[in-house]
Amino acid sequence: MDYRIEKDTMGEVKVPADKYWGAQTERSRNNFKIGASASMPKEIVEGFAYLKKAAAYANHDLGVLPVEKRDAIAQVCDEILAGKLTDQFPLVIWQTGSGTQSNMNVNEVVANRAQVLAGHKIGEGEPVLKANDDVNKSQSSNDTFPTGMHIAAYKMVIETTIPGVEQLRDTLKAKSEAFMNVVKIGRTHLMDATPLTLGQEFSGYVAQLNYGLKALKNTLAHLSEVALGGTAVGTGLNTPDGYDVKVAEYIAKFTGLPFVTAENKFEALAAHDAIVESHGALKQLAVSLNKIANDVRMLASGPRSSIGEIIIPENEPGSSIMPGKVNPTQCEALTMVCAQVFGNDVAITVGGTQGHYELNVFKPVMAANFLQSARLIGDACVSFDEHCASGIEPNHARITELVNNSLMLVTALNTKIGYYKAAEIAQTAHKNGTTLKEEAVRLGYVSAEDFDAWVKPEDMVGKLK
Amino acid sequence: MDYRIEKDTMGEVKVPADKYWGAQTERSRNNFKIGASASMPKEIVEGFAYLKKAAAYANHDLGVLPVEKRDAIAQVCDEILAGKLTDQFPLVIWQTGSGTQSNMNVNEVVANRAQVLAGHKIGEGEPVLKANDDVNKSQSSNDTFPTGMHIAAYKMVIETTIPGVEQLRDTLKAKSEAFMNVVKIGRTHLMDATPLTLGQEFSGYVAQLNYGLKALKNTLAHLSEVALGGTAVGTGLNTPDGYDVKVAEYIAKFTGLPFVTAENKFEALAAHDAIVESHGALKQLAVSLNKIANDVRMLASGPRSSIGEIIIPENEPGSSIMPGKVNPTQCEALTMVCAQVFGNDVAITVGGTQGHYELNVFKPVMAANFLQSARLIGDACVSFDEHCASGIEPNHARITELVNNSLMLVTALNTKIGYYKAAEIAQTAHKNGTTLKEEAVRLGYVSAEDFDAWVKPEDMVGKLK
Amino acid sequence: MDYRIEKDTMGEVKVPADKYWGAQTERSRNNFKIGASASMPKEIVEGFAYLKKAAAYANHDLGVLPVEKRDAIAQVCDEILAGKLTDQFPLVIWQTGSGTQSNMNVNEVVANRAQVLAGHKIGEGEPVLKANDDVNKSQSSNDTFPTGMHIAAYKMVIETTIPGVEQLRDTLKAKSEAFMNVVKIGRTHLMDATPLTLGQEFSGYVAQLNYGLKALKNTLAHLSEVALGGTAVGTGLNTPDGYDVKVAEYIAKFTGLPFVTAENKFEALAAHDAIVESHGALKQLAVSLNKIANDVRMLASGPRSSIGEIIIPENEPGSSIMPGKVNPTQCEALTMVCAQVFGNDVAITVGGTQGHYELNVFKPVMAANFLQSARLIGDACVSFDEHCASGIEPNHARITELVNNSLMLVTALNTKIGYYKAAEIAQTAHKNGTTLKEEAVRLGYVSAEDFDAWVKPEDMVGKLK
Amino acid sequence: MDYRIEKDTMGEVKVPADKYWGAQTERSRNNFKIGASASMPKEIVEGFAYLKKAAAYANHDLGVLPVEKRDAIAQVCDEILAGKLTDQFPLVIWQTGSGTQSNMNVNEVVANRAQVLAGHKIGEGEPVLKANDDVNKSQSSNDTFPTGMHIAAYKMVIETTIPGVEQLRDTLKAKSEAFMNVVKIGRTHLMDATPLTLGQEFSGYVAQLNYGLKALKNTLAHLSEVALGGTAVGTGLNTPDGYDVKVAEYIAKFTGLPFVTAENKFEALAAHDAIVESHGALKQLAVSLNKIANDVRMLASGPRSSIGEIIIPENEPGSSIMPGKVNPTQCEALTMVCAQVFGNDVAITVGGTQGHYELNVFKPVMAANFLQSARLIGDACVSFDEHCASGIEPNHARITELVNNSLMLVTALNTKIGYYKAAEIAQTAHKNGTTLKEEAVRLGYVSAEDFDAWVKPEDMVGKLK
Repeated sequence: MDYRIEKDTMGEVKVPADKYWGAQTERSRNNFKIGASASMPKEIVEGFAYLKKAAAYANHDLGVLPVEKRDAIAQVCDEILAGKLTDQFPLVIWQTGSGTQSNMNVNEVVANRAQVLAGHKIGEGEPVLKANDDVNKSQSSNDTFPTGMHIAAYKMVIETTIPGVEQLRDTLKAKSEAFMNVVKIGRTHLMDATPLTLGQEFSGYVAQLNYGLKALKNTLAHLSEVALGGTAVGTGLNTPDGYDVKVAEYIAKFTGLPFVTAENKFEALAAHDAIVESHGALKQLAVSLNKIANDVRMLASGPRSSIGEIIIPENEPGSSIMPGKVNPTQCEALTMVCAQVFGNDVAITVGGTQGHYELNVFKPVMAANFLQSARLIGDACVSFDEHCASGIEPNHARITELVNNSLMLVTALNTKIGYYKAAEIAQTAHKNGTTLKEEAVRLGYVSAEDFDAWVKPEDMVGKLK
Repeated sequence: MDYRIEKDTMGEVKVPADKYWGAQTERSRNNFKIGASASMPKEIVEGFAYLKKAAAYANHDLGVLPVEKRDAIAQVCDEILAGKLTDQFPLVIWQTGSGTQSNMNVNEVVANRAQVLAGHKIGEGEPVLKANDDVNKSQSSNDTFPTGMHIAAYKMVIETTIPGVEQLRDTLKAKSEAFMNVVKIGRTHLMDATPLTLGQEFSGYVAQLNYGLKALKNTLAHLSEVALGGTAVGTGLNTPDGYDVKVAEYIAKFTGLPFVTAENKFEALAAHDAIVESHGALKQLAVSLNKIANDVRMLASGPRSSIGEIIIPENEPGSSIMPGKVNPTQCEALTMVCAQVFGNDVAITVGGTQGHYELNVFKPVMAANFLQSARLIGDACVSFDEHCASGIEPNHARITELVNNSLMLVTALNTKIGYYKAAEIAQTAHKNGTTLKEEAVRLGYVSAEDFDAWVKPEDMVGKLK
Repeated sequence: MDYRIEKDTMGEVKVPADKYWGAQTERSRNNFKIGASASMPKEIVEGFAYLKKAAAYANHDLGVLPVEKRDAIAQVCDEILAGKLTDQFPLVIWQTGSGTQSNMNVNEVVANRAQVLAGHKIGEGEPVLKANDDVNKSQSSNDTFPTGMHIAAYKMVIETTIPGVEQLRDTLKAKSEAFMNVVKIGRTHLMDATPLTLGQEFSGYVAQLNYGLKALKNTLAHLSEVALGGTAVGTGLNTPDGYDVKVAEYIAKFTGLPFVTAENKFEALAAHDAIVESHGALKQLAVSLNKIANDVRMLASGPRSSIGEIIIPENEPGSSIMPGKVNPTQCEALTMVCAQVFGNDVAITVGGTQGHYELNVFKPVMAANFLQSARLIGDACVSFDEHCASGIEPNHARITELVNNSLMLVTALNTKIGYYKAAEIAQTAHKNGTTLKEEAVRLGYVSAEDFDAWVKPEDMVGKLK
Repeated sequence: MDYRIEKDTMGEVKVPADKYWGAQTERSRNNFKIGASASMPKEIVEGFAYLKKAAAYANHDLGVLPVEKRDAIAQVCDEILAGKLTDQFPLVIWQTGSGTQSNMNVNEVVANRAQVLAGHKIGEGEPVLKANDDVNKSQSSNDTFPTGMHIAAYKMVIETTIPGVEQLRDTLKAKSEAFMNVVKIGRTHLMDATPLTLGQEFSGYVAQLNYGLKALKNTLAHLSEVALGGTAVGTGLNTPDGYDVKVAEYIAKFTGLPFVTAENKFEALAAHDAIVESHGALKQLAVSLNKIANDVRMLASGPRSSIGEIIIPENEPGSSIMPGKVNPTQCEALTMVCAQVFGNDVAITVGGTQGHYELNVFKPVMAANFLQSARLIGDACVSFDEHCASGIEPNHARITELVNNSLMLVTALNTKIGYYKAAEIAQTAHKNGTTLKEEAVRLGYVSAEDFDAWVKPEDMVGKLK
């Protein structure tokens, strides 16, 4: 392979000739061969592109960066955002915990790419931009990485997670309304209980997702605060006056999202509680989704030898050995995503606890886990919606058979004959394999007419909305 | 021991003669010998006392319970709340996951105690109250237990967690203000970095706790919703019209807290996402507290052979073998509490995922873990505040010595001579064991006068608020 | 309340007159009002009693403690082990992370109780024993607490966890053998699959528990190593030659368990990986138990409107509102225990990571979580065994009905007519609501005779052991 | 793009013309657009290649597969193992939880590639191999996926995890021996304590890793059991006699690893406790590594304003804003890996609990998390070893300065003058900022000569091995 020589404060490094990155990126690439290469999420790189451009604009406005340098930086950032430089970011999550080399990766690529755009070869001619002094001006890894992390996290939540959950929520709401009069047996402790309607059952799912969405949105204010302007330790050393507010305004402008400067920069560097907080809400959504997906597969279980109250779409052959088998595969994908999110929550919690003094150095692992969870939840909700939830239909015959069988219809008699006599009826019917009505009449507690008048599943489901 | 015979729908049971509980409590006591006895949190029992009284009032208002029964129920509930019947609740967390027997424990105690208060012996004379038909009227374990759980959780958060965290936050805020001009070395990656003030460092802690408190308060709306009125499966079977709203109003009145009826009773029985949500915020607070406590013990480490920048109170001899040793014991207690909260969060998450159909049957374990976390955080913050934080003082001599030593003061030169030359100065001073100034001048990059003018720790800390 | 004055190196403290503890215990009691009082597990106190007695014997053998002092210490330790001094240990888990004050609590109680046993009043006359110099001789909190922790953990695992799991395993093995010829439908993805026998299904549970027991036993070697002899930092400062080996021998003798001195005392103080390791195995057992308990409740679900293939004992009325309901309450208690163990595993993991330099100061929280898990698993297995597993019976009629219904019996035709034609048969029968045989013949793929010969559930279950 | 038509039991599907996969792979690709594409770990695909080849050999030996089909299957499997077909496996982790479509992906690729190798076009001519009837003969997804998972997991542990940890362990052992006489201050509770040697400190790390390696090796027996031969539900339906043992022997032969057939196939399909068990050991290793990495960065902290007792290699510029800064970046990468492993353990635990009846359908998420942890630990240990541990050197001057300063040297006087007087000396010296010797003499407790004779750090470290 062809190489060129790049330099940093530690000396010379050989870098692949066809890459824009410089010495520090290459050092990191060589020093951290941990897991698959280029594992640093591309959303983080895009977050950096937004913030480098914003910093260039703020620096120029505040008189510390000439317009040509501003525009040179912005041009390369726009290329990154357009996806033109995706093979220029080879670093891994498992590097320094401040993400310093990923910051430098962006600085170096911007500087070298600008050199080429200006018609020079890398390393030749007067540098258009210096990686540290220009591209990184008024910045530190310590405030850029958390800023990039918040941009990436906020965008993913807004663009993928929330729309995905809302799409599923809307489908479940429509199903709840469509099924509102389908009276079925309820189950508590997995055991037969008093009836409700299928629409009521689904309304609980809708409520869960609505609470989860509200909880997630509650966390966005914290996540919208960006650390930029804190530089090395939160004091804002080497930044011009007013820089922090202005740079956040530019980030908001460029992303179209309501980012603001963090109220306390020391917190914003040393702790990543905003990530902990928002991921807590993602975990709550996963808890809800797990319940919903589990219910769907249990209600759909069968087709002949289990519950089978609902029918879900057949999307693919279910088995390589059992011909004709259909499985609740979307439920499985979704619950596997949930398991992952529960694990990611612990990784983020552990990372969040371990900030020391002025810096938390678990930034990349926290960011990567957050982005994975946020994306998986959004994607899995869409997949589950399109290939399962939207096709759910009641199996009316089965539902009717099961509700009419239930011994727990006896509960309607509590207020007529008391809990004890009602219990005796149910227990006797259970023992004898008879119906409630037979035993109610035989025991002399209720007349046949009263039984028919009092024990109606459709009267036991309360008011339907 | 003396026994009496109690009956339920399954038959007769021998119960200790001196106890008010009945057959179902005794069955549960015998069937669930798991862990220490009486582990069901007393706050849950108190939550039940509130709700049983509220249900009696609502039932009476709605015409389904005579006033004498209402008052008989209320009288015993008040005794429970006054702590007069604490030895009447022997059940454990590890029982049925709906807490049915704990509900029946309260029903039985209320019924039997009322019998005694009415001048009868238990089991003799016309029953003043029937456990199922009167005390449990318009209720099910499935809606009472989650209601009791929300009452207990909300009260603990309001009465213990938030005041405890606020007390610590206030102390840290006062310390932050008092130490605002104490310039010290910053540390990132545990390594010497540019300076900040001790007050700035502490302001980060204050910000963390403020975010955590806000996050916790964001969850209270969900937690204030009570399931009561949903009865067995959420449909409200066997409740009078308007009961759910009214009973919530009575709970609000009796507790003095803003409880309301749950918007969706199916969600309120089948999922406990409100517990998941609020505990997520407790976990976030634990993440913050862990960071703070860790910093305090590292900053106080020494007294002679480590950092030693702050002095913490000496509360007890630190060692049984090393005479004169003083340890950061409050930090240790607090971080152990945090570890417990992280674990509890997983227990609650797992419990939260496993609702099936119309009921989540991990209620007791979720409640117990929540209450433990909420109490431990509150108590530990008070303890940490009173025995540690409030006594923190700067070790001025040590702070000054360490900040003046730091090679990272060189960062002030970046904007004057560029990052590369500044790095050379720092590296040379490090290699030679000399001062920055010596090397800056020797290398010819800065004059001694400029160095003194440019490199002042007190000018490197930004604006102080 | 009456008080007496006790002293330590920090000065005087008022202590309740009727208690044996001294100044340091009292300081800790006042300084750590976190959660319920006396939460430090009693098993830890008993572990201390074993080790203090062992240390006294070893010290005497090695010539550094007179026989009268040895015997005075041993006498009080025996009283502690006999449960005579249970109200003398008021401290909480949430104290210093080395458990120093719990060590001193034992030292003080032993010294003061010995004074009383010698006929003196506490604080009067020549001290029979000095808490630090005699009772704590050749010891430090740093090596005693982990030793007490290992004694307590090992005993709990041997005396409660393993017997409990084995009892359940034996019952499941007997059930597996009894049910070995009960052919039933298999279910994969919760959907109907090819048949197996109920005994085969249960044999999987037995295998799980056997693997878990083996995994747990694999960890005992590490847990059997005791730190005693390392004193303050692992070097064994202030211990006589040969002390570490001898004191472990005495611990082994007094407990009847194979404790040995830790090979590396630095590891034994600074890390508690043995606790992490053994709890990992407890967690594995909880994973297995969760699967088993879940299966049992799903197989037992019904009685009429779900699977209902097995019948479990009716132990208590299942509902306060639904008369005659029976629930799988033992499954619920057991799975709640599992959720707790999963949480405890995270608490222990977090504690385990945070040893610093020569000491891990998360000892009490790690010990408490370990002991809770070990006890709950053992107790819950016994409870589940006695009140559920041992009473499980097949519902033969239901099993036969469901297996004969299954479309997945078609799999037996794969090797005769190929996967594709078999699938067509199953899909057609599913669509038409017919039987496999009808469609097989109608489609012309199999003759009726061949179908009957080839598709026999009892021939599809392989060899039965 | 060009397409061809593929068929399965559900009908026709358009597949990219240049790919070997068939209808079911394509369905899965379209139905599960969750996260990045092709996320199913390649190690799983390789595991499948081994087992498909082994199955072909076993099938042939047992008379159910002709030799030409065996060889056709083996040839493509060898191509997969040689990395020639890496772009043929586009599926994601988040699919059906049995991994059925990944099994079919391999079946389809093998069949179609064999067709091409035989000189045909895909879909033309008599099929050389049928995906279900030949390539999948005597197999089900339900036994192949867990077999592939065990092959992949076992190989990763043997080839990456254990060698990586051992390499680091060996370096730490060499350092421990090299530093065995470097007397330094000990620290407990982060506070100054009695001395030990740097080599002793490092010996604790070596012991931790040795225990962890032993724990990991303890789990390999369970992991070496393969499910193959259980087919759909564990009964081995549609397999020839003796197949399970024989196919495991071929897997062992082809991989060179000691795989055996699982003793109980029901456990092997329905539970993945072997994965839970081995990952528990990986988590234990991560706990140990976290402690070690933390210690290293704290001991190396400085260079001037913190502990600075050891010097670690300078691998890259540490800061984009602070010139000359060097950070413990390898420690950070390693502790981030540990945080990930802790999270993965929870994901695996949750997945492990949720097997239902005859099948656990969290296979892909469990496998992916396991493989990530196993690889990251191995890689990170090598990285940490090569770029940090192997270059650690003591800072002798700093070590000597700090140990001589320590007030805890007073502990040596305990056995001479008692704990209380020793404490008084230390406390007075601390208060007055004087030396122990000054105060010891001034207080009249020890003569200057005795002090010098008794208080020698080098005599306080016990026997050095």
